[in-house]
Amino acid sequence: MTDRPTALDLPPADPLPERTARYFELCEQKLGMVPNVLRAHAFAPEKLDAFTALYNDLMLGGSGLTKLEREMIAVVVSSANRCWYCQVAHGAAVRALSGDPALGERMVMNWRTADLDGRTRAMLDFAEAVTLASSRIGEADRAALRAAGFEDRDIWDIANVAGLFNMTNRVASATGMEPNPEYHAQAR
Amino acid sequence: MTDRPTALDLPPADPLPERTARYFELCEQKLGMVPNVLRAHAFAPEKLDAFTALYNDLMLGGSGLTKLEREMIAVVVSSANRCWYCQVAHGAAVRALSGDPALGERMVMNWRTADLDGRTRAMLDFAEAVTLASSRIGEADRAALRAAGFEDRDIWDIANVAGLFNMTNRVASATGMEPNPEYHAQAR
Amino acid sequence: MTDRPTALDLPPADPLPERTARYFELCEQKLGMVPNVLRAHAFAPEKLDAFTALYNDLMLGGSGLTKLEREMIAVVVSSANRCWYCQVAHGAAVRALSGDPALGERMVMNWRTADLDGRTRAMLDFAEAVTLASSRIGEADRAALRAAGFEDRDIWDIANVAGLFNMTNRVASATGMEPNPEYHAQAR
Amino acid sequence: MTDRPTALDLPPADPLPERTARYFELCEQKLGMVPNVLRAHAFAPEKLDAFTALYNDLMLGGSGLTKLEREMIAVVVSSANRCWYCQVAHGAAVRALSGDPALGERMVMNWRTADLDGRTRAMLDFAEAVTLASSRIGEADRAALRAAGFEDRDIWDIANVAGLFNMTNRVASATGMEPNPEYHAQAR
Amino acid sequence: MTDRPTALDLPPADPLPERTARYFELCEQKLGMVPNVLRAHAFAPEKLDAFTALYNDLMLGGSGLTKLEREMIAVVVSSANRCWYCQVAHGAAVRALSGDPALGERMVMNWRTADLDGRTRAMLDFAEAVTLASSRIGEADRAALRAAGFEDRDIWDIANVAGLFNMTNRVASATGMEPNPEYHAQAR
Amino acid sequence: MTDRPTALDLPPADPLPERTARYFELCEQKLGMVPNVLRAHAFAPEKLDAFTALYNDLMLGGSGLTKLEREMIAVVVSSANRCWYCQVAHGAAVRALSGDPALGERMVMNWRTADLDGRTRAMLDFAEAVTLASSRIGEADRAALRAAGFEDRDIWDIANVAGLFNMTNRVASATGMEPNPEYHAQAR
Repeated sequence: MTDRPTALDLPPADPLPERTARYFELCEQKLGMVPNVLRAHAFAPEKLDAFTALYNDLMLGGSGLTKLEREMIAVVVSSANRCWYCQVAHGAAVRALSGDPALGERMVMNWRTADLDGRTRAMLDFAEAVTLASSRIGEADRAALRAAGFEDRDIWDIANVAGLFNMTNRVASATGMEPNPEYHAQAR
Repeated sequence: MTDRPTALDLPPADPLPERTARYFELCEQKLGMVPNVLRAHAFAPEKLDAFTALYNDLMLGGSGLTKLEREMIAVVVSSANRCWYCQVAHGAAVRALSGDPALGERMVMNWRTADLDGRTRAMLDFAEAVTLASSRIGEADRAALRAAGFEDRDIWDIANVAGLFNMTNRVASATGMEPNPEYHAQAR
Repeated sequence: MTDRPTALDLPPADPLPERTARYFELCEQKLGMVPNVLRAHAFAPEKLDAFTALYNDLMLGGSGLTKLEREMIAVVVSSANRCWYCQVAHGAAVRALSGDPALGERMVMNWRTADLDGRTRAMLDFAEAVTLASSRIGEADRAALRAAGFEDRDIWDIANVAGLFNMTNRVASATGMEPNPEYHAQAR
Repeated sequence: MTDRPTALDLPPADPLPERTARYFELCEQKLGMVPNVLRAHAFAPEKLDAFTALYNDLMLGGSGLTKLEREMIAVVVSSANRCWYCQVAHGAAVRALSGDPALGERMVMNWRTADLDGRTRAMLDFAEAVTLASSRIGEADRAALRAAGFEDRDIWDIANVAGLFNMTNRVASATGMEPNPEYHAQAR
Repeated sequence: MTDRPTALDLPPADPLPERTARYFELCEQKLGMVPNVLRAHAFAPEKLDAFTALYNDLMLGGSGLTKLEREMIAVVVSSANRCWYCQVAHGAAVRALSGDPALGERMVMNWRTADLDGRTRAMLDFAEAVTLASSRIGEADRAALRAAGFEDRDIWDIANVAGLFNMTNRVASATGMEPNPEYHAQAR
Repeated sequence: MTDRPTALDLPPADPLPERTARYFELCEQKLGMVPNVLRAHAFAPEKLDAFTALYNDLMLGGSGLTKLEREMIAVVVSSANRCWYCQVAHGAAVRALSGDPALGERMVMNWRTADLDGRTRAMLDFAEAVTLASSRIGEADRAALRAAGFEDRDIWDIANVAGLFNMTNRVASATGMEPNPEYHAQAR
């Protein structure tokens, strides 16, 4: 393994544009690292900008879903796809946001063993179905979400967060992306 | 079916921000319609902006892949996922860009029957594997792309275009998104 | 690609028996072509006779199923099996018989997105299950057809039409059979 | 269980046409029974005629494949599809034609454990692939058959025998067809 | 094929410990053979002891399940895993214990075609689910067993018998274990 | 959740036989807990004895495989089967025995991303194939292990360790077995 964030030879823009350099400094301050998914995009700052705008809107923007709910979707999808990078990074986020290390492990290993309320179970059932058999999703699946208390705007958000990780899981696996080692010991 | 672009009750922002209204007018002029995937995002213009920025960078931005190659990936991925919206919209794009209606049909129905050169076959093999079994992608798969003439930057682009449609396919299926009827007769 | 209807080197009987020559002329007059599935069998006229007798009985003979219903089963089965030949030829038939080009596309791309009545949905559900998981079909599945209004004779016909295309799909794919190019533009 | 050959209420034509009655008598004389697949078709003698013509051409007609080879394909396909009727009836045929009861059992239970020559293994590999993943069959698979000594006419026959049982397996399972009990003890 | 019970070169301990020699003599007397699964373990008598202790406790020890019920689970699991050794040996056991040769065949070929009471069907449904999709088993599956009349101790036994054959099936297939030929003709 | 080790109501023998009580004390001393898989068997001490004898022979007995290698097989199999109990308990063992916390995570999340030598990769490839497709294992797979330096005795051990966890995974999932919470923080 080298210090490259992926298996591809795509060195970062040099110098980084000032907005990117500032963003990476901010990451260092807040997270203690620049997540490798960001470093991986740094060969093309306009790609980094587009990715972070979408990612931040879906994961950090206003939503009827809590940040923990969105991270739980992230891990369940990433577990279904067995994405090394995303299970590591977002498993840590579930541990940290929930204060429950075992919950993060359950999302990685087998989310169905968790003792979840009906709303959360419906949400993760939908996210898993979107991942594994999206062509069979239909009105009955959306009705199950509404019956569990979700509004149509929430359904949009569940579908899009699940969709996002179906994208990032595949990009990470296809490019051999490695998670920053700092994640492993976090929130244990 | 109503005029709603999806099965969700998410009416567009009213009024649309001026930048969005202008973008939709531009679509009407160039395409004769506003694609429903854009109308579907119009309830939250900042989401529309984020989605179109990412989409346009990957599908229209600079790349070692031609626009036709990117559309072929789009259809092969969408066929593997059986996404109604994306097979319709991007099948039309392959027919139009290639001038070969049967090629668009092959990408939808069974891309392996097409008489493709080694580069294109390697590209679509990788895109399909990324879609169906991303956790098993490894260095041998990337080496096969390099042997077919792709550079690491191209591999990034193949992975990201394939990833993008693995996201949009799932969002479209999960929300019941309907393609604009105009696509069906195009480039036949 | 050559003019051969399949990837196999099996030239037609020469001369064709008179009954076969007449049948092919009739095809030319009525369809504007001799479908390649018939040309493919012409190396052994007794095989052509046996195939056309079975095919015509099931697809054109008396039945409680309309011709459009039988063609819809044909396309749903052929889509599940991703058979290039049969999706092309029978997709055209659904477009022509229904007068609804998008319906033919839906049967090819994802039949579950179509807005179907309960009878048709039950029929296609059964045909798909017969294709993908026949060993799990049981009395409950037949009861669902009866509840949707089908009689036992209709169930026989649905099973046999679905069975027929599970045969022809595999023969077409295994022999590299190419559909006549005329189909692509039909009934768009 | 009743005496009906399937779960459907489709009594035989009464009286049977003379040609059908004679055919059934011939079955009784040669096989000691009328196979239930024939009794199942007897509600519509023209369907029985079409089915037997196709079946007899493929399984009993001239071919580069021996009758045992064709029966081995029948059982391997029927095992992959887990068809109760066809595994029983054609398992008995493999036992009888080969004089090797365990060979019939291997074809039913796991054909890959059998000690087969390269020609037979190639043939069954192709038949299984045609059954389980026909959309992925391509020139390389046909080349493997040619390398094992098969001619193009043989490839046609392998594809069609495999196709035939992919039809009959599904019809039998979909209609709840029961094999005649006489098969079980045969050629043990 | 040689006389070795598996494809591995692991000759039996020589001499066999006296307890093992006596056990094998007992097998000869009661069964007319030493089952090859026992001969396969004889290279390491302490492994043979551990295996037979577990096997005999589960298959022959006290239980709310009859011996026939345990053998039916064995065959259904072994059929799902297509294990040559275990389908042969335990198919014979179902034929012998039930006095119904066709029942043994049904368990091998497609257990769902058998005319079973609700208790037996629930038991085999659970055993099959444990085999094919154990990560999805949950409280609803256990509730279905309880509703069919099973106590918690019986559920333990069903799970463990199904588990046992998921182990032995894989060991037999992975080592190329061959069943004793005597089984084939038994209880026909 | 209660203090019961599984979802079944099977209280331990009371009093425990002296040998069992001593064994559990030993576990407390060495591990700081009695693993729940042992507590789950305590309703029937003879079952506990049989299970521990087999388990200890395979996981702790003499073998050409190191204890770490056996634990890596355990986790790869348990990950393929998504067994909550075994991924937790044996993931901890891999972390502890290897001194490499990330290695334990990789075995759980996607073992193919680990940077392994050829011997280890061949071993885990075989264990995974035994888990997911045992009916297709054949001489070529055993030859691959021999080429990687394994002897036939080692192949037996790999097959049996993989088999063991295919049993325990299913028993744990089928009975709702919960791992002791102490595992989560171990060896991070």
